[in-house]
Amino acid sequence: MKRRNFLKASATGLAASVMAAPAIAQTAPAIRWRMQTAWPRALDTVHGSAEALAKRVQSLTDGKFEIRVFAAPEIVPPPQIFDAVQNQTIEAGHVLSTFYIGKKMAYAFDAGVPFGLNLRQQHAWLFHGGGLAAMREVFAKAGLIQFAAGNVGVQMGGFYRKEIKTVEDLQGLKFRIGGFGGVVMRKLGVVPTQIATADIYPSLERGTIDAAEWIGPYDDEKLGLHKVAKFYYYPGWWEGSAQITILLNLAKWNELPPAYKEAFEMACHEQNVVLIAKYDALNPAALKRLIAQGVQLKQFPRAVLDACYKATMETLDEQAKADADFKKIHDSWKVFLDESNSWFRVAEASLDNYRYAAGRRR
Amino acid sequence: MKRRNFLKASATGLAASVMAAPAIAQTAPAIRWRMQTAWPRALDTVHGSAEALAKRVQSLTDGKFEIRVFAAPEIVPPPQIFDAVQNQTIEAGHVLSTFYIGKKMAYAFDAGVPFGLNLRQQHAWLFHGGGLAAMREVFAKAGLIQFAAGNVGVQMGGFYRKEIKTVEDLQGLKFRIGGFGGVVMRKLGVVPTQIATADIYPSLERGTIDAAEWIGPYDDEKLGLHKVAKFYYYPGWWEGSAQITILLNLAKWNELPPAYKEAFEMACHEQNVVLIAKYDALNPAALKRLIAQGVQLKQFPRAVLDACYKATMETLDEQAKADADFKKIHDSWKVFLDESNSWFRVAEASLDNYRYAAGRRR
Repeated sequence: MKRRNFLKASATGLAASVMAAPAIAQTAPAIRWRMQTAWPRALDTVHGSAEALAKRVQSLTDGKFEIRVFAAPEIVPPPQIFDAVQNQTIEAGHVLSTFYIGKKMAYAFDAGVPFGLNLRQQHAWLFHGGGLAAMREVFAKAGLIQFAAGNVGVQMGGFYRKEIKTVEDLQGLKFRIGGFGGVVMRKLGVVPTQIATADIYPSLERGTIDAAEWIGPYDDEKLGLHKVAKFYYYPGWWEGSAQITILLNLAKWNELPPAYKEAFEMACHEQNVVLIAKYDALNPAALKRLIAQGVQLKQFPRAVLDACYKATMETLDEQAKADADFKKIHDSWKVFLDESNSWFRVAEASLDNYRYAAGRRR
Repeated sequence: MKRRNFLKASATGLAASVMAAPAIAQTAPAIRWRMQTAWPRALDTVHGSAEALAKRVQSLTDGKFEIRVFAAPEIVPPPQIFDAVQNQTIEAGHVLSTFYIGKKMAYAFDAGVPFGLNLRQQHAWLFHGGGLAAMREVFAKAGLIQFAAGNVGVQMGGFYRKEIKTVEDLQGLKFRIGGFGGVVMRKLGVVPTQIATADIYPSLERGTIDAAEWIGPYDDEKLGLHKVAKFYYYPGWWEGSAQITILLNLAKWNELPPAYKEAFEMACHEQNVVLIAKYDALNPAALKRLIAQGVQLKQFPRAVLDACYKATMETLDEQAKADADFKKIHDSWKVFLDESNSWFRVAEASLDNYRYAAGRRR
C-alpha cells in the first residue's frame, strides 16, 4: 500500500483525533505548485522529464506535494520564465540556464559553456566539486535556487543550407542559435538570431535564416529541419553538455517541509540518470533515420573549431573582466576543467576511442 | 519536520486510536535488513556509497526501513555474498556482478563486459534499452533481483612490475585480475589470480604476482601498490564501465511495501549520479599525486589492445554458444552496443577529443 493510502486510511479511521491535532496537518501540508517548461509538449524527452519528475514528487510525498506542469508558452514565453519564477507567477521553471545570460553571464556555467565540461564532468563539478553551491550563491541574489534535473549531452551543431568549409563561410551566416554560443559566434561574423521553436522551420525553409541548431537527432527529427537544410553538422561545441535546470523561487523553496525538499531532490536525481539514458538510447536510431532520408552528416572542419575555440577563450576572459560573479566561478571552474580533462583523456577517452575504431574495423 | 517525526507525533498523540487500528502498523512496518558490501570499510567511495544509500532509504521511509551496512568480510567473504543473499543470511549484497560469473557468465553484462558499454551507454541500455528487465529475468532464476546503484567508470589497467611492450610480454604474467577480463587474458597466456584485497600488496611486493589491477587512481592510491610496482597502465579494457549492483533476495524484495520499494529505487538512482561524480572529482588529483611519487603512466600498446580485443570477441562467441541466457542477452546487447557506438563517436567523442587536445595546446 502506498503511503498516501496509509494517510488516507489514517484520515478516515482517526478523523476525530486528527481534527483535534492540527499540528499534524501542518507537518504534511497539501502544496500545489505550477512549473512551466521551456519546451513544447511534443518533446517527450525534456518536457516528458518534467512531467515524470512532478509525478515522482507527488508519489514520494503521499500525494501531498503536487506540481502541475505546463508546456511553453502556456503561461509565459520561455524568455520570461526566469521573471515569472522570481515574481511567483509560477513557483518553478524547467529551463536551460543559458536562456538567461542576458541578465547575468555567470548563469551559463550552470547549463554548460562552449568547449566546457561534458556530462560526467558537469556532474562531478556540481555534486562533488563545489559547483552546485557556487551557482546557488549567484542564483540566490535573484531570489532563486536551481537544481540540476537531467542533461541532454553534447548536442548536434544544427542544420545548414550550405556547407561550412572555411572560417570565412561563417561570415554573415544567419544562424538560429542562442546562449553563449551566439555570443562567441558574433566574433566570427555570424549573425545569431533567436527564433521561437514554431518559427524555426518556416524561417529556414524561406531562407530568412541560413542555419538552425536545436537539440540532437531524436528531437531534431520532430522539427523536420532536415527537409529544408541537408547539411547536419557536429559537434555542438557551444556546450560541453547541456544541463537542464529547475529554477525555483527561493522563498517558496524555503517554505517546504524537509521531507518535501528531500522528495524533490530525489526526483531530480532520477532525472539526472534517466533523461540522458533516454536520449542516449533514442538518438542512435534517429541519426540513422535522418541519414536514410538524405541528410549529410558533417564534422565542423578543424580550422572552424579552432577559430571557435579561440573566440570562446577570448569571450571567457572578457566576461571574467566584466563581472565579479563570472570571474569567481570561472576561475575555480577552469582549474576543475583542466584537471578533469587530464584524467578523462587517460582511461575514459582512450578506451572509448579504441572501442569505436575497433568496432568499425571488425 | 521529517515525516518520521510526523509519524512519531502521530503515534504519541493518537496512541489510543493507533492501538485500535492495527492495519496502520501493517502498512508502515518497521523492517530491518542487512546488506554486506564487497569492499573494505576504508573505501569511502564504493563502501561509502552503500552507507549513503542506506541512510537515504531510512530517511525516505520515515525511519521505518533500516538497512544495516557491513563491510567485507564482516559476515561472509565477497565471493559468498551471492549465496548469502540467496539463502537469506543477508537480504542484500553490494557487489560487482562479474564476481559471480563462475555461476553464470551472463551476469557479466550487468557489471560490464570487456570493450563493452561505457557508463552513459550502460545507463541507456539498462534504463531505456531493455537491459534492466533482461538481466532481471536471468537473476530471478537464482531467486535474486538486481539494482544498478552507482558506477566506477573506466578503471585503470593496474600496476606492473615490468613494462608490457608486446603481446608476448603477457605470456606467463601472474596478474591479479578477476571476472571476464581474467577469462579473456588466459587466452593470451596470462595466469589470472584472484587475491583478497588485503593480500594484494604483499603478493606484489614479494613478486608472487607480477601485476595487479584494482580500481582507479583514488582507490588504488590507498592500497599503495605504486610503492612496489611502478608501471601504471591504462585503460582497464575489461569493462567499458564498472557498474555497481545491489543484489537483493527476490522474496524479501517482494515483501516490501510499494513505498519502501520506491524509496529504495530512488536511493539507487541518487548513487547512480553521485558515486561516479565523486570518482570523477577525486581521480584527477589522485593520478597527479601518484605520478608525483614516481609512477610511470603507460598506455597499453596498440598491438596488446588488438590481441585483447580479438580474444574478447572469441570469448563472447564461445560463451554465446555455450549458454542460452548468455546468447539471448549478448545478441540484443551487441546490436545496442554497435548502434550506440555509431552515435557516441559523432557528437560526444568528437567534442571530447577536440577539447582534450586543444586544452593541452593552449
